[in-house]
Amino acid sequence: MAELPPLSPLPELPPDAAIAQSTELAHITTIGERLGLSADELEPYGRHKAKVSLAVVDRRREERPRGKLVLVTAMTATRFGDGKTVTSISLAQGFGKLGVSHCLALREPSLGPTFGIKGGAAGGGRSQVLPMEDINMHFTGDLHAVTSANNLLAAAVDNRVFYQEKAIRRGKAEAKPSDVDPERIVWRRALDICDRQLRHCDIGLGKKSDGFPHRSGFDITAASEIMAVLALAKDRADLRARLERMVVAWTRDGQPVRAGALGCIGALEVLLHDALAPNLVQTIEQTPALIHCGPFANIAHGCNSVVATELAMRSAEWTVTEAGFAADLGAEKFLDIKCRQLGTFPAAAVLVVTCRALKLHGGVALAELGEENVEALTEGFANVRTHLANLRDVYGVPVVVAINRFGFDTTAELQAVVDLVEGEGAGWAISDGFGRGGEGGVELARAVMAAGAEGNRPLNPSYALDVSLREKVETLARRIYRAEGVDWSEEAEADLAQIIAAGGDELPICVAKTQHSLSDDPNLRGAPTGWRLRVGGLKLSAGAGFVVVRTGDLMLMPGMPKKSAAQNIGLDDSGNIVGLS
Amino acid sequence: MAELPPLSPLPELPPDAAIAQSTELAHITTIGERLGLSADELEPYGRHKAKVSLAVVDRRREERPRGKLVLVTAMTATRFGDGKTVTSISLAQGFGKLGVSHCLALREPSLGPTFGIKGGAAGGGRSQVLPMEDINMHFTGDLHAVTSANNLLAAAVDNRVFYQEKAIRRGKAEAKPSDVDPERIVWRRALDICDRQLRHCDIGLGKKSDGFPHRSGFDITAASEIMAVLALAKDRADLRARLERMVVAWTRDGQPVRAGALGCIGALEVLLHDALAPNLVQTIEQTPALIHCGPFANIAHGCNSVVATELAMRSAEWTVTEAGFAADLGAEKFLDIKCRQLGTFPAAAVLVVTCRALKLHGGVALAELGEENVEALTEGFANVRTHLANLRDVYGVPVVVAINRFGFDTTAELQAVVDLVEGEGAGWAISDGFGRGGEGGVELARAVMAAGAEGNRPLNPSYALDVSLREKVETLARRIYRAEGVDWSEEAEADLAQIIAAGGDELPICVAKTQHSLSDDPNLRGAPTGWRLRVGGLKLSAGAGFVVVRTGDLMLMPGMPKKSAAQNIGLDDSGNIVGLS
Repeated sequence: MAELPPLSPLPELPPDAAIAQSTELAHITTIGERLGLSADELEPYGRHKAKVSLAVVDRRREERPRGKLVLVTAMTATRFGDGKTVTSISLAQGFGKLGVSHCLALREPSLGPTFGIKGGAAGGGRSQVLPMEDINMHFTGDLHAVTSANNLLAAAVDNRVFYQEKAIRRGKAEAKPSDVDPERIVWRRALDICDRQLRHCDIGLGKKSDGFPHRSGFDITAASEIMAVLALAKDRADLRARLERMVVAWTRDGQPVRAGALGCIGALEVLLHDALAPNLVQTIEQTPALIHCGPFANIAHGCNSVVATELAMRSAEWTVTEAGFAADLGAEKFLDIKCRQLGTFPAAAVLVVTCRALKLHGGVALAELGEENVEALTEGFANVRTHLANLRDVYGVPVVVAINRFGFDTTAELQAVVDLVEGEGAGWAISDGFGRGGEGGVELARAVMAAGAEGNRPLNPSYALDVSLREKVETLARRIYRAEGVDWSEEAEADLAQIIAAGGDELPICVAKTQHSLSDDPNLRGAPTGWRLRVGGLKLSAGAGFVVVRTGDLMLMPGMPKKSAAQNIGLDDSGNIVGLS
Repeated sequence: MAELPPLSPLPELPPDAAIAQSTELAHITTIGERLGLSADELEPYGRHKAKVSLAVVDRRREERPRGKLVLVTAMTATRFGDGKTVTSISLAQGFGKLGVSHCLALREPSLGPTFGIKGGAAGGGRSQVLPMEDINMHFTGDLHAVTSANNLLAAAVDNRVFYQEKAIRRGKAEAKPSDVDPERIVWRRALDICDRQLRHCDIGLGKKSDGFPHRSGFDITAASEIMAVLALAKDRADLRARLERMVVAWTRDGQPVRAGALGCIGALEVLLHDALAPNLVQTIEQTPALIHCGPFANIAHGCNSVVATELAMRSAEWTVTEAGFAADLGAEKFLDIKCRQLGTFPAAAVLVVTCRALKLHGGVALAELGEENVEALTEGFANVRTHLANLRDVYGVPVVVAINRFGFDTTAELQAVVDLVEGEGAGWAISDGFGRGGEGGVELARAVMAAGAEGNRPLNPSYALDVSLREKVETLARRIYRAEGVDWSEEAEADLAQIIAAGGDELPICVAKTQHSLSDDPNLRGAPTGWRLRVGGLKLSAGAGFVVVRTGDLMLMPGMPKKSAAQNIGLDDSGNIVGLS
């Protein structure tokens, strides 16, 4: 068995925002040059952010071959998060230290969680993307554009029904089977916020002229289908086609009402015009980062945009990207949904593990995760073993395990993880991105270059598209989650019939499942066996091009905790932003 | 009596968006140079938009004297609008033609009306501000920042009450008189959209964990008090103080709950950090335009920001600015509210009149406004006479009447207007900004330079601050609207008592009144007499620093028409935006 390399002492670091503010940033044109982009090909947003013209993406698709893609994913994490983003940034910076051409391609943070629980999502310590204040706040306005487009569409649907019902009420028209059914408007509104009050609302109250009453609600913007559409669109034409296909309601006789029928797709395109272009920023070590789109990882596929990933791959030898949640959710959707758009699998995957998460899966209580417990850690490794097998055996992607080091990890624990990983025959590296930035990612970069040396892998999804939706869910449940089978609720059966009637049987599936377990029960740790996946309902996301399969409760609008991150965020006396991380 | 100058034939023009797209724009740094701004003092947003650092505003306040300010306002307009913005842009371009240093300072358009009825608000014809697509859409994100801040505060209020009521329900706390009263949360949510369905909503429905049910609703973002606060704040410290003072709810024992009590003012400051800096763009003739903030002209004061106006005045010999609605509303609030912040009155006011509006006020039906009718026009001049007298006699501001020419005006009508204006002893010019841009504004610029030659006028508001709220309303109603008195509803009396108890008696007033009449009845044309102003209610906008006085119905969330502008807006085959005007 390999021995642990000598571990550097973990440095004491100032708060993330202070590190960010003391970093000297390169002008964004300098960062663009590292990807071969001229100043003319960038639309600057201040000095340190830019949008890259979509024409550049199209041209590079023609002119340049693809570099290698690395997907950073993780074992089933603790509630604290276990450092996928920090590891991704550190890995990219590690490539930089080795003088290897590289590009990061990450998701955009969402304002809601920044002010709710998370307090920011731009990495941390010495592995951050900058300017972190902008990236965590309004950035280049992409999320606001999605919010605006989502809500314009909602207003357009309701406006159609308002005039339809008014004409019927006044005897100027008769109710027709092809009318929009006022009881079956499925398009919800969106805001980029954590606000539980907006989950379920009765709207259109007041006078007759104030609309027609119906139950509706708001999802967080990242959960809007438009965010998924934006992230999956290959170009403007694809964006338009996807927007048109979105189902916003059902008719009185059960046919889908598509967004295209409302006459406002042009307005949505205009609202999303800039948002479709990828955003260029830099890491704390001045390496290039494309940060673009951030769809939810339950109702949507949880990855950054296809156009940004494509641009990164056509611009660098190695592209590092990340998918939300653990590998059963994030990597699964990346490989089964997004990679079908890209037409390729990555050259390698990085599976982030932590001693803390391993102990959790070995049965240790939250309060005791800080204490050494090699036995529990060994027990919890069953979780990693399943994710490893999924990635390698089901999808055929080489894996490197990144052991993301925390200050409270003991040498014995780290050695145990190394031994277990070696027992599986997988590559590994200690990842020290938070404390040491790119220096802490060099070993991981070397391991990834070795694992991915053969180049991007051929597409090999876990299920085929030309089987039924029912079979897709069964296959995924057995192969990836390791369930014994699937139980369909009555509601799910009804949804299934309706979606099949609407032509959705050919689509891939996007399973919304708890991120806290490989199973559908958040309390089951490790690698649960002997359980069956319970499907509660399905939703046709025809624009995104998948069917959402709901298992368990789906939280699409988080609430704020009693003490929220918003209460820590502010300006200091010099006008610097504090409290973000 | 003066004779009409020879009138150029009105040219046939392509659509506004086509004119805009065929215009060559200067790089924003070139525009900045015209105001003496170095590239370092600009934060570029692409090549044709920039934010000007607030430090520049502060420095210029110290270093440079103020140039002269011109307020563009109007007679009571028709429902079509009568060209204040076009006249403002044309006037600024006219100064440019004369080689006189100048700057425009206008309001930001709002997405809602752009997709609802208006289809854009960046001028028109040969008097536009550019890039009009950006200005009409997300621009530099200021409105989105206001929406985010507004809704974060709403979530914070409700979150406080959620945990308060939960503790009481579970017996962990007792209801106290100083608690936020769940029935009296007055802070509403905001979206930049036209959506009647959101006017009145019951929120917090669903399970206990989904919040507590209460009636709420959404206003359009321009109606958020935060928009007014942003527009009136002198600097960051003033912004913070105003945000803290905003009243979001009332306690069980009737005390105001200020936003400052919720612990999230820092987060609001961070969200509004960039939004407080003025936006620099250019007109179609490459003259500088600061476009910043757009508060509603009923519940708020309807002017662009104090910081942008200050910057413009410290950067140019002549600053042209505009206020919403007609002079009884827009100019009144500009002079009685905004100018108290600025500490000066303008050097001159431009009163925009049109033959069409004059005929409307002379009793002509909408459908017949296209026909010549000198008699009705003469009758309708009573409306102009009142606005003129208000500006000159009440406020002491010299006035130039801009006769905004339309293709259907006849020579006889235009001559009649000139004669009537001369009869009042006021300066005038035919304004031909739509068809001829700056060339069509030269005469107006000359007239304004003559009228304003003595420089900015001393502050001389229509009412003093140290009288009671009741007396302020009485004074305004009699002096400006020419009412015979004021009738207070029971609700208004109760509001008044509460606001006085909360210390609001010293504040200026912001009257929400119909823009379609000098009176409070939208159907009364001309210069109505023998009527009394009916006050329905009052609202303390303690952050904005005024008390809103509601007369008539207050529409804070427009609806979409059956056929909306959103249905005309889109991209053409070359990816250009069409349908905006």
